[in-house]
Amino acid sequence: MMTVLEAIKERTSYRGGYKNTPVPREDLVKIMDAGLLAPSGCNTQTTSLIAVDDTEVLNKLREVIEPEFIISAPSLICVLTQAIPAYKDKCFNVQDYSAAIENMLIAIVGLGYQSCWVEGQITDEHEIGKKMAKILGVPDDYELICFLPVGIADQPIKHAGRKPFEERAWFNGFRV
Amino acid sequence: MMTVLEAIKERTSYRGGYKNTPVPREDLVKIMDAGLLAPSGCNTQTTSLIAVDDTEVLNKLREVIEPEFIISAPSLICVLTQAIPAYKDKCFNVQDYSAAIENMLIAIVGLGYQSCWVEGQITDEHEIGKKMAKILGVPDDYELICFLPVGIADQPIKHAGRKPFEERAWFNGFRV
Repeated sequence: MMTVLEAIKERTSYRGGYKNTPVPREDLVKIMDAGLLAPSGCNTQTTSLIAVDDTEVLNKLREVIEPEFIISAPSLICVLTQAIPAYKDKCFNVQDYSAAIENMLIAIVGLGYQSCWVEGQITDEHEIGKKMAKILGVPDDYELICFLPVGIADQPIKHAGRKPFEERAWFNGFRV
Repeated sequence: MMTVLEAIKERTSYRGGYKNTPVPREDLVKIMDAGLLAPSGCNTQTTSLIAVDDTEVLNKLREVIEPEFIISAPSLICVLTQAIPAYKDKCFNVQDYSAAIENMLIAIVGLGYQSCWVEGQITDEHEIGKKMAKILGVPDDYELICFLPVGIADQPIKHAGRKPFEERAWFNGFRV
């Protein structure tokens, strides 16, 4: 198992294909557990998860996911959020689900799998997230805002380029 | 060094006091590096960080942080965000900084320190975040939305209670 810093360093947004080796339920539970262990504003626990590993359900989901986002992964985890006020009537559910997603992404890498945070493409005007939610029987007070494919990569892993540390981080004052 | 799953499990929102043992720069760099390695919408890299470990600067910040949030930690990391459109004119900077914060929180725990995500209390009508930004010379196009104290806890670590797994996570469909 990778150390926490190794997993953070190895995580990348993998957009290639996947082997069809199934992900054991035990690992999917570990990954979801990692997500649920993320903090939430005033402990409102606004994030819920649905893992999909049933071929029939996966195929139904693939029908509504646009061609360019067809995923060959043997499983995926859908992220649901509820806009529950946490502090002074302010909702922190975006922060909550983002922390949960990041926990899952690094847990996925730590367990030897790959994934990608798919959000913008399913919450835009095509409302793919809503179509996925309907297939999964998600009630109206939850919003399906993201899914994470989970599987073993069958293509090389690439890491995104980044600005140098000193352009984004400083000590004791803003330095740009 | 903890494994990724251990660090995720051990992380908690620590609100107790800190020992005055300084956090080595080397560790602060590792923590900030973990934050900057988080994904961002279309790789816009909207999150920047300022670590504060200088006593004089810390004292100035403590003057504007409300009494109940006075922190005795020997260092803290301030999180800055820029609202840069990423996908179809939509900004994902809240997601970006939340993922960066979560990476840092679990890196902090993995390195033997404690912390707490302080956001709601510095972005409300008292505008503590803006006062902190002024002290640190942060330009107007960046918003200081969170700080993380970093230090060694001098009080017992408590973990927040959570709903059982089966109330927040399911397989192949919504099950509540």
